[in-house]
Amino acid sequence: MDVYAKLKELNLTLPDPPKKGGIYKPVKQVGNCLYVSGHVPSFQGEYKFIGKLGAELTIEEGQQAARLCVLNALSNLHNFLGDLNKIKSLIKTLGFVQSAEGFVQQPEVINGASSLLQEIWGEDGLGARSAIGVNQLPHGVGVEIEFIFEI
Amino acid sequence: MDVYAKLKELNLTLPDPPKKGGIYKPVKQVGNCLYVSGHVPSFQGEYKFIGKLGAELTIEEGQQAARLCVLNALSNLHNFLGDLNKIKSLIKTLGFVQSAEGFVQQPEVINGASSLLQEIWGEDGLGARSAIGVNQLPHGVGVEIEFIFEI
Amino acid sequence: MDVYAKLKELNLTLPDPPKKGGIYKPVKQVGNCLYVSGHVPSFQGEYKFIGKLGAELTIEEGQQAARLCVLNALSNLHNFLGDLNKIKSLIKTLGFVQSAEGFVQQPEVINGASSLLQEIWGEDGLGARSAIGVNQLPHGVGVEIEFIFEI
Repeated sequence: MDVYAKLKELNLTLPDPPKKGGIYKPVKQVGNCLYVSGHVPSFQGEYKFIGKLGAELTIEEGQQAARLCVLNALSNLHNFLGDLNKIKSLIKTLGFVQSAEGFVQQPEVINGASSLLQEIWGEDGLGARSAIGVNQLPHGVGVEIEFIFEI
Repeated sequence: MDVYAKLKELNLTLPDPPKKGGIYKPVKQVGNCLYVSGHVPSFQGEYKFIGKLGAELTIEEGQQAARLCVLNALSNLHNFLGDLNKIKSLIKTLGFVQSAEGFVQQPEVINGASSLLQEIWGEDGLGARSAIGVNQLPHGVGVEIEFIFEI
Repeated sequence: MDVYAKLKELNLTLPDPPKKGGIYKPVKQVGNCLYVSGHVPSFQGEYKFIGKLGAELTIEEGQQAARLCVLNALSNLHNFLGDLNKIKSLIKTLGFVQSAEGFVQQPEVINGASSLLQEIWGEDGLGARSAIGVNQLPHGVGVEIEFIFEI
Protein backbone atom coordinates (compact mmCIF):
# COMPACT_ATOMS: atom_id res chain seq x y z
CA MET A 1 0.00 0.00 0.00
CA ASP A 2 1.07 3.58 -0.64
CA VAL A 3 2.79 4.98 2.47
CA TYR A 4 0.96 8.30 2.27
CA ALA A 5 -2.42 6.54 2.00
CA LYS A 6 -1.36 4.42 4.98
CA LEU A 7 -0.48 7.50 7.02
CA LYS A 8 -3.85 9.04 6.12
CA GLU A 9 -5.61 5.82 7.16
CA LEU A 10 -3.82 6.09 10.52
CA ASN A 11 -4.95 9.74 10.79
CA LEU A 12 -1.33 10.86 10.79
CA THR A 13 0.05 13.99 9.17
CA LEU A 14 3.77 14.41 8.58
CA PRO A 15 5.02 17.40 10.57
CA ASP A 16 7.33 19.95 8.99
CA PRO A 17 10.94 18.75 9.08
CA PRO A 18 12.32 19.58 12.53
CA LYS A 19 14.98 22.25 12.84
CA LYS A 20 18.47 20.81 13.09
CA GLY A 21 20.10 20.86 16.51
CA GLY A 22 23.70 20.77 15.33
CA ILE A 23 26.22 20.29 12.54
CA TYR A 24 25.02 17.19 10.70
CA LYS A 25 22.74 15.86 7.97
CA PRO A 26 19.30 14.58 8.94
CA VAL A 27 19.72 11.74 6.44
CA LYS A 28 22.90 10.36 4.85
CA GLN A 29 22.72 7.78 2.06
CA VAL A 30 25.40 5.19 1.39
CA GLY A 31 24.51 2.63 -1.24
CA ASN A 32 21.00 1.42 -0.40
CA CYS A 33 21.28 2.40 3.27
CA LEU A 34 19.81 5.57 4.72
CA TYR A 35 21.39 6.60 8.01
CA VAL A 36 18.90 8.78 9.88
CA SER A 37 20.18 11.10 12.62
CA GLY A 38 18.87 10.94 16.17
CA HIS A 39 15.39 12.44 16.22
CA VAL A 40 13.65 13.93 19.23
CA PRO A 41 9.98 14.69 19.96
CA SER A 42 9.79 18.24 18.67
CA PHE A 43 6.72 19.70 17.02
CA GLN A 44 6.51 22.96 15.11
CA GLY A 45 9.84 24.10 16.47
CA GLU A 46 9.09 23.26 20.10
CA TYR A 47 10.49 20.39 22.15
CA LYS A 48 7.77 18.15 23.59
CA PHE A 49 7.75 15.42 26.25
CA ILE A 50 10.42 17.02 28.39
CA GLY A 51 11.30 14.96 31.44
CA LYS A 52 12.45 11.56 32.59
CA LEU A 53 10.58 8.32 32.30
CA GLY A 54 9.90 7.02 35.75
CA ALA A 55 9.56 10.59 37.06
CA GLU A 56 7.87 13.35 35.02
CA LEU A 57 6.74 11.18 32.09
CA THR A 58 4.47 8.12 32.06
CA ILE A 59 5.13 5.16 29.79
CA GLU A 60 2.25 6.26 27.57
CA GLU A 61 3.76 9.70 27.22
CA GLY A 62 7.10 8.10 26.43
CA GLN A 63 5.44 6.03 23.71
CA GLN A 64 3.84 9.15 22.24
CA ALA A 65 7.24 10.83 22.32
CA ALA A 66 8.72 7.84 20.48
CA ARG A 67 5.96 8.06 17.84
CA LEU A 68 6.75 11.74 17.36
CA CYS A 69 10.43 10.86 16.85
CA VAL A 70 9.33 8.53 14.04
CA LEU A 71 7.08 11.14 12.43
CA ASN A 72 9.90 13.68 12.49
CA ALA A 73 12.28 11.14 10.99
CA LEU A 74 9.72 10.32 8.28
CA SER A 75 9.35 14.02 7.55
CA ASN A 76 13.08 14.28 6.96
CA LEU A 77 13.07 11.07 4.92
CA HIS A 78 10.23 12.44 2.77
CA ASN A 79 12.28 15.59 2.28
CA PHE A 80 15.35 13.58 1.34
CA LEU A 81 13.75 10.94 -0.87
CA GLY A 82 10.87 12.89 -2.36
CA ASP A 83 8.78 9.72 -1.98
CA LEU A 84 8.59 7.54 1.15
CA ASN A 85 7.50 4.62 -1.03
CA LYS A 86 11.16 4.23 -1.99
CA ILE A 87 11.78 2.76 1.48
CA LYS A 88 12.07 -1.00 1.34
CA SER A 89 12.55 -1.86 4.99
CA LEU A 90 13.72 -0.75 8.41
CA ILE A 91 17.21 -2.05 9.18
CA LYS A 92 17.82 -0.85 12.72
CA THR A 93 16.49 1.33 15.52
CA LEU A 94 18.62 2.63 18.37
CA GLY A 95 16.39 4.24 20.98
CA PHE A 96 17.53 6.18 24.02
CA VAL A 97 15.15 6.83 26.90
CA GLN A 98 15.88 9.56 29.45
CA SER A 99 15.38 7.49 32.59
CA ALA A 100 15.00 8.28 36.26
CA GLU A 101 16.79 6.05 38.76
CA GLY A 102 15.15 2.64 38.76
CA PHE A 103 13.21 2.95 35.47
CA VAL A 104 13.78 -0.23 33.47
CA GLN A 105 10.95 -0.34 30.90
CA GLN A 106 12.88 1.25 28.01
CA PRO A 107 11.67 -1.43 25.53
CA GLU A 108 8.01 -0.60 26.22
CA VAL A 109 8.72 3.07 25.54
CA ILE A 110 10.53 2.42 22.26
CA ASN A 111 7.69 0.09 21.24
CA GLY A 112 5.80 3.35 20.62
CA ALA A 113 8.12 3.94 17.67
CA SER A 114 8.35 0.32 16.56
CA SER A 115 4.60 -0.28 16.52
CA LEU A 116 4.09 2.74 14.26
CA LEU A 117 6.76 1.55 11.82
CA GLN A 118 5.13 -1.88 11.86
CA GLU A 119 1.69 -0.36 11.20
CA ILE A 120 3.09 1.46 8.17
CA TRP A 121 5.41 -1.15 6.64
CA GLY A 122 4.23 -4.41 8.22
CA GLU A 123 6.94 -7.08 8.52
CA ASP A 124 9.37 -4.78 6.65
CA GLY A 125 8.86 -2.17 9.39
CA LEU A 126 10.54 -4.49 11.89
CA GLY A 127 14.32 -4.22 12.16
CA ALA A 128 17.02 -4.93 14.68
CA ARG A 129 16.71 -2.77 17.77
CA SER A 130 18.27 -1.69 21.03
CA ALA A 131 16.51 0.25 23.78
CA ILE A 132 18.83 1.99 26.23
CA GLY A 133 18.27 4.15 29.29
CA VAL A 134 20.36 7.28 29.79
CA ASN A 135 20.42 10.00 32.42
CA GLN A 136 20.21 13.02 30.09
CA LEU A 137 19.13 13.75 26.52
CA PRO A 138 19.39 16.97 24.50
CA HIS A 139 16.93 19.67 25.57
CA GLY A 140 15.75 17.36 28.34
CA VAL A 141 13.45 15.38 26.04
CA GLY A 142 12.31 11.92 27.14
CA VAL A 143 13.29 10.00 24.01
CA GLU A 144 15.82 10.19 21.16
CA ILE A 145 15.87 7.63 18.36
CA GLU A 146 18.11 7.03 15.35
CA PHE A 147 17.32 4.69 12.48
CA ILE A 148 18.83 2.95 9.48
CA PHE A 149 16.46 2.28 6.57
CA GLU A 150 16.95 0.27 3.38
CA ILE A 151 15.82 1.61 0.02
CA MET B 1 37.64 -24.59 12.58
CA ASP B 2 33.92 -25.39 12.78
CA VAL B 3 32.18 -22.94 15.12
CA TYR B 4 30.16 -25.64 16.86
CA ALA B 5 33.29 -27.72 17.50
CA LYS B 6 34.94 -24.57 18.84
CA LEU B 7 32.02 -23.92 21.20
CA LYS B 8 32.23 -27.51 22.41
CA GLU B 9 35.97 -27.14 22.95
CA LEU B 10 35.22 -24.08 25.09
CA ASN B 11 32.61 -26.11 27.02
CA LEU B 12 29.88 -23.74 25.84
CA THR B 13 26.32 -24.67 24.94
CA LEU B 14 24.12 -22.30 22.98
CA PRO B 15 21.12 -21.37 25.12
CA ASP B 16 17.62 -21.36 23.66
CA PRO B 17 16.95 -18.11 21.78
CA PRO B 18 15.91 -15.50 24.36
CA LYS B 19 12.33 -14.27 24.37
CA LYS B 20 11.94 -10.96 22.59
CA GLY B 21 11.48 -7.91 24.78
CA GLY B 22 9.70 -5.74 22.23
CA ILE B 23 8.63 -5.15 18.64
CA TYR B 24 11.71 -5.94 16.57
CA LYS B 25 13.67 -8.65 14.82
CA PRO B 26 16.53 -10.31 16.69
CA VAL B 27 18.55 -10.31 13.45
CA LYS B 28 18.09 -8.24 10.29
CA GLN B 29 20.12 -8.93 7.17
CA VAL B 30 21.02 -6.31 4.58
CA GLY B 31 23.42 -7.47 1.92
CA ASN B 32 26.24 -9.28 3.71
CA CYS B 33 25.63 -7.46 6.99
CA LEU B 34 23.71 -8.94 9.91
CA TYR B 35 22.41 -6.34 12.34
CA VAL B 36 21.89 -8.03 15.71
CA SER B 37 19.53 -6.42 18.23
CA GLY B 38 20.65 -5.46 21.70
CA HIS B 39 21.03 -8.64 23.76
CA VAL B 40 20.86 -8.89 27.52
CA PRO B 41 22.05 -11.58 29.96
CA SER B 42 18.91 -13.67 30.16
CA PHE B 43 18.95 -17.44 30.57
CA GLN B 44 16.03 -19.81 30.13
CA GLY B 45 13.57 -16.92 30.24
CA GLU B 46 15.02 -15.27 33.32
CA TYR B 47 17.06 -12.06 33.47
CA LYS B 48 20.45 -12.55 35.11
CA PHE B 49 23.11 -10.19 36.44
CA ILE B 50 20.66 -7.57 37.62
CA GLY B 51 22.33 -4.52 39.11
CA LYS B 52 24.86 -1.81 38.45
CA LEU B 53 28.55 -2.24 37.93
CA GLY B 54 30.36 -0.45 40.70
CA ALA B 55 27.55 -1.29 43.11
CA GLU B 56 25.74 -4.66 43.06
CA LEU B 57 27.89 -6.31 40.36
CA THR B 58 31.63 -6.95 40.29
CA ILE B 59 33.66 -6.58 37.10
CA GLU B 60 33.87 -10.38 36.84
CA GLU B 61 30.09 -10.65 37.06
CA GLY B 62 29.80 -7.95 34.42
CA GLN B 63 32.14 -9.93 32.17
CA GLN B 64 30.04 -13.06 32.67
CA ALA B 65 26.96 -11.01 31.83
CA ALA B 66 28.66 -9.80 28.65
CA ARG B 67 29.52 -13.40 27.69
CA LEU B 68 25.89 -14.37 28.20
CA CYS B 69 24.84 -11.51 25.88
CA VAL B 70 27.13 -13.02 23.22
CA LEU B 71 25.76 -16.54 23.70
CA ASN B 72 22.19 -15.26 23.39
CA ALA B 73 23.12 -13.35 20.27
CA LEU B 74 24.80 -16.45 18.82
CA SER B 75 21.67 -18.46 19.61
CA ASN B 76 19.58 -16.00 17.58
CA LEU B 77 22.18 -15.95 14.81
CA HIS B 78 22.15 -19.77 14.69
CA ASN B 79 18.36 -19.60 14.44
CA PHE B 80 18.55 -17.02 11.66
CA LEU B 81 21.39 -18.49 9.61
CA GLY B 82 20.93 -22.18 10.27
CA ASP B 83 24.72 -22.44 10.41
CA LEU B 84 27.04 -20.14 12.39
CA ASN B 85 29.88 -21.09 10.05
CA LYS B 86 28.36 -18.66 7.55
CA ILE B 87 29.69 -15.82 9.70
CA LYS B 88 32.83 -14.32 8.19
CA SER B 89 33.70 -11.68 10.77
CA LEU B 90 32.52 -9.36 13.51
CA ILE B 91 32.06 -5.81 12.22
CA LYS B 92 31.08 -3.87 15.32
CA THR B 93 30.12 -4.17 18.99
CA LEU B 94 28.23 -1.49 20.89
CA GLY B 95 28.18 -2.38 24.57
CA PHE B 96 26.24 -0.58 27.28
CA VAL B 97 27.10 -1.10 30.94
CA GLN B 98 24.64 -0.15 33.69
CA SER B 99 26.98 1.89 35.83
CA ALA B 100 26.85 3.28 39.34
CA GLU B 101 28.19 6.78 39.92
CA GLY B 102 31.95 6.75 39.48
CA PHE B 103 32.28 3.40 37.68
CA VAL B 104 34.59 3.91 34.69
CA GLN B 105 35.77 0.42 33.70
CA GLN B 106 33.19 -0.23 30.97
CA PRO B 107 35.83 -1.52 28.51
CA GLU B 108 36.94 -4.24 30.95
CA VAL B 109 33.33 -5.39 31.30
CA ILE B 110 32.70 -5.52 27.55
CA ASN B 111 35.98 -7.41 27.15
CA GLY B 112 33.98 -10.37 28.52
CA ALA B 113 32.06 -10.36 25.24
CA SER B 114 35.00 -9.48 23.01
CA SER B 115 37.30 -12.15 24.39
CA LEU B 116 34.69 -14.84 23.72
CA LEU B 117 34.20 -13.67 20.13
CA GLN B 118 37.98 -13.66 19.70
CA GLU B 119 38.24 -17.19 21.15
CA ILE B 120 35.68 -18.40 18.61
CA TRP B 121 36.68 -16.51 15.47
CA GLY B 122 40.25 -15.41 16.21
CA GLU B 123 41.30 -12.22 14.40
CA ASP B 124 37.95 -12.17 12.56
CA GLY B 125 36.20 -12.03 15.94
CA LEU B 126 37.65 -8.57 16.55
CA GLY B 127 35.64 -5.65 15.23
CA ALA B 128 35.22 -1.97 15.94
CA ARG B 129 33.79 -1.34 19.40
CA SER B 130 32.44 1.22 21.82
CA ALA B 131 31.87 0.65 25.54
CA ILE B 132 29.49 3.10 27.17
CA GLY B 133 28.18 3.54 30.69
CA VAL B 134 24.50 4.29 31.27
CA ASN B 135 22.38 4.76 34.36
CA GLN B 136 19.63 2.26 33.51
CA LEU B 137 19.14 -0.74 31.24
CA PRO B 138 16.00 -2.77 30.48
CA HIS B 139 14.94 -5.05 33.35
CA GLY B 140 17.79 -3.65 35.40
CA VAL B 141 20.40 -5.91 33.80
CA GLY B 142 24.05 -4.96 34.06
CA VAL B 143 24.94 -5.20 30.37
CA GLU B 144 23.27 -4.85 26.95
CA ILE B 145 25.21 -5.40 23.73
CA GLU B 146 24.34 -5.07 20.04
CA PHE B 147 26.48 -6.37 17.18
CA ILE B 148 26.95 -6.21 13.45
CA PHE B 149 28.39 -9.33 11.80
CA GLU B 150 29.58 -9.95 8.24
CA ILE B 151 28.63 -13.07 6.34
CA MET C 1 42.28 19.72 -1.21
CA ASP C 2 44.77 17.28 0.25
CA VAL C 3 43.70 16.31 3.79
CA TYR C 4 47.20 16.66 5.21
CA ALA C 5 47.59 20.13 3.71
CA LYS C 6 44.20 21.00 5.17
CA LEU C 7 45.25 19.79 8.62
CA LYS C 8 48.42 21.88 8.36
CA GLU C 9 46.37 24.90 7.33
CA LEU C 10 44.27 24.38 10.47
CA ASN C 11 47.48 24.14 12.53
CA LEU C 12 46.60 20.58 13.50
CA THR C 13 49.03 17.71 13.97
CA LEU C 14 47.83 14.13 14.06
CA PRO C 15 48.66 12.64 17.47
CA ASP C 16 50.18 9.18 17.74
CA PRO C 17 47.48 6.50 17.53
CA PRO C 18 45.96 6.15 21.02
CA LYS C 19 46.61 2.97 22.97
CA LYS C 20 43.73 0.54 22.77
CA GLY C 21 41.51 0.24 25.82
CA GLY C 22 40.20 -3.26 25.16
CA ILE C 23 39.83 -6.21 22.82
CA TYR C 24 38.82 -4.67 19.49
CA LYS C 25 40.09 -3.13 16.26
CA PRO C 26 40.35 0.66 16.05
CA VAL C 27 39.04 0.47 12.46
CA LYS C 28 37.15 -2.33 10.71
CA GLN C 29 36.47 -2.19 6.98
CA VAL C 30 33.48 -3.82 5.29
CA GLY C 31 33.07 -2.99 1.64
CA ASN C 32 33.48 0.77 1.33
CA CYS C 33 32.52 1.40 4.97
CA LEU C 34 35.02 2.02 7.73
CA TYR C 35 33.64 1.39 11.20
CA VAL C 36 35.68 3.40 13.69
CA SER C 37 35.67 2.37 17.36
CA GLY C 38 34.65 4.75 20.11
CA HIS C 39 37.45 7.27 20.61
CA VAL C 40 38.13 9.26 23.75
CA PRO C 41 40.14 12.43 24.39
CA SER C 42 43.51 10.89 25.21
CA PHE C 43 46.82 12.49 24.27
CA GLN C 44 50.27 10.86 24.39
CA GLY C 45 48.92 8.04 26.49
CA GLU C 46 47.08 10.18 29.01
CA TYR C 47 43.33 10.67 29.33
CA LYS C 48 42.29 14.31 29.06
CA PHE C 49 39.10 16.21 29.83
CA ILE C 50 38.10 14.02 32.76
CA GLY C 51 34.78 15.01 34.30
CA LYS C 52 31.14 15.61 33.57
CA LEU C 53 29.70 18.32 31.39
CA GLY C 54 27.54 20.53 33.55
CA ALA C 55 29.87 19.96 36.49
CA GLU C 56 33.66 19.77 36.11
CA LEU C 57 33.80 20.56 32.37
CA THR C 58 32.57 23.62 30.48
CA ILE C 59 30.97 23.35 27.05
CA GLU C 60 34.14 24.74 25.48
CA GLU C 61 36.22 22.07 27.20
CA GLY C 62 33.71 19.45 26.00
CA GLN C 63 34.11 20.74 22.45
CA GLN C 64 37.89 20.53 22.73
CA ALA C 65 37.50 16.97 24.04
CA ALA C 66 35.30 16.14 21.04
CA ARG C 67 37.94 17.58 18.66
CA LEU C 68 40.57 15.43 20.32
CA CYS C 69 38.34 12.36 19.78
CA VAL C 70 38.31 13.22 16.06
CA LEU C 71 42.08 13.70 15.88
CA ASN C 72 42.64 10.35 17.59
CA ALA C 73 40.19 8.69 15.19
CA LEU C 74 41.96 10.32 12.22
CA SER C 75 45.28 9.06 13.56
CA ASN C 76 43.94 5.51 13.59
CA LEU C 77 42.38 5.99 10.16
CA HIS C 78 45.70 7.27 8.80
CA ASN C 79 47.34 4.18 10.28
CA PHE C 80 44.73 1.91 8.74
CA LEU C 81 44.44 3.51 5.30
CA GLY C 82 47.95 4.82 4.79
CA ASP C 83 46.37 7.91 3.21
CA LEU C 84 43.45 9.91 4.64
CA ASN C 85 42.68 11.18 1.14
CA LYS C 86 41.03 7.81 0.50
CA ILE C 87 38.13 8.95 2.70
CA LYS C 88 35.17 10.02 0.59
CA SER C 89 32.70 11.12 3.25
CA LEU C 90 31.53 10.84 6.83
CA ILE C 91 28.53 8.52 7.14
CA LYS C 92 27.63 8.74 10.80
CA THR C 93 28.71 10.06 14.19
CA LEU C 94 27.47 8.70 17.50
CA GLY C 95 28.65 10.92 20.31
CA PHE C 96 28.29 10.26 24.02
CA VAL C 97 28.69 13.06 26.54
CA GLN C 98 29.32 12.30 30.23
CA SER C 99 26.64 14.52 31.69
CA ALA C 100 25.84 15.80 35.15
CA GLU C 101 22.20 15.87 36.23
CA GLY C 102 20.37 18.53 34.23
CA PHE C 103 22.97 19.01 31.46
CA VAL C 104 21.11 18.98 28.14
CA GLN C 105 23.50 20.63 25.63
CA GLN C 106 25.03 17.42 24.25
CA PRO C 107 24.63 18.60 20.62
CA GLU C 108 26.72 21.73 21.27
CA VAL C 109 29.49 19.56 22.73
CA ILE C 110 29.53 17.12 19.81
CA ASN C 111 29.56 20.10 17.42
CA GLY C 112 33.21 20.36 18.45
CA ALA C 113 33.81 17.13 16.54
CA SER C 114 31.41 17.87 13.69
CA SER C 115 32.78 21.34 12.95
CA LEU C 116 36.31 19.94 12.61
CA LEU C 117 35.15 17.22 10.21
CA GLN C 118 33.31 19.89 8.23
CA GLU C 119 36.40 22.12 8.17
CA ILE C 120 38.42 19.25 6.74
CA TRP C 121 35.97 17.65 4.29
CA GLY C 122 33.36 20.38 3.75
CA GLU C 123 29.92 19.07 2.83
CA ASP C 124 31.29 15.50 2.75
CA GLY C 125 32.34 15.91 6.38
CA LEU C 126 28.69 16.12 7.42
CA GLY C 127 26.97 12.81 8.17
CA ALA C 128 24.04 11.55 10.18
CA ARG C 129 24.52 12.09 13.91
CA SER C 130 23.20 11.44 17.37
CA ALA C 131 24.33 13.19 20.54
CA ILE C 132 23.51 11.36 23.76
CA GLY C 133 24.11 12.10 27.43
CA VAL C 134 25.28 9.32 29.74
CA ASN C 135 26.20 9.17 33.39
CA GLN C 136 29.61 7.49 33.03
CA LEU C 137 32.23 6.99 30.34
CA PRO C 138 35.43 4.93 30.38
CA HIS C 139 38.22 6.45 32.47
CA GLY C 140 35.84 9.23 33.44
CA VAL C 141 36.39 11.18 30.22
CA GLY C 142 33.83 13.78 29.18
CA VAL C 143 33.24 12.57 25.63
CA GLU C 144 33.40 9.34 23.59
CA ILE C 145 32.63 9.29 19.87
CA GLU C 146 32.38 6.54 17.26
CA PHE C 147 32.20 7.10 13.52
CA ILE C 148 31.45 5.42 10.22
CA PHE C 149 33.32 6.75 7.18
CA GLU C 150 32.92 5.98 3.49
CA ILE C 151 35.92 5.37 1.25
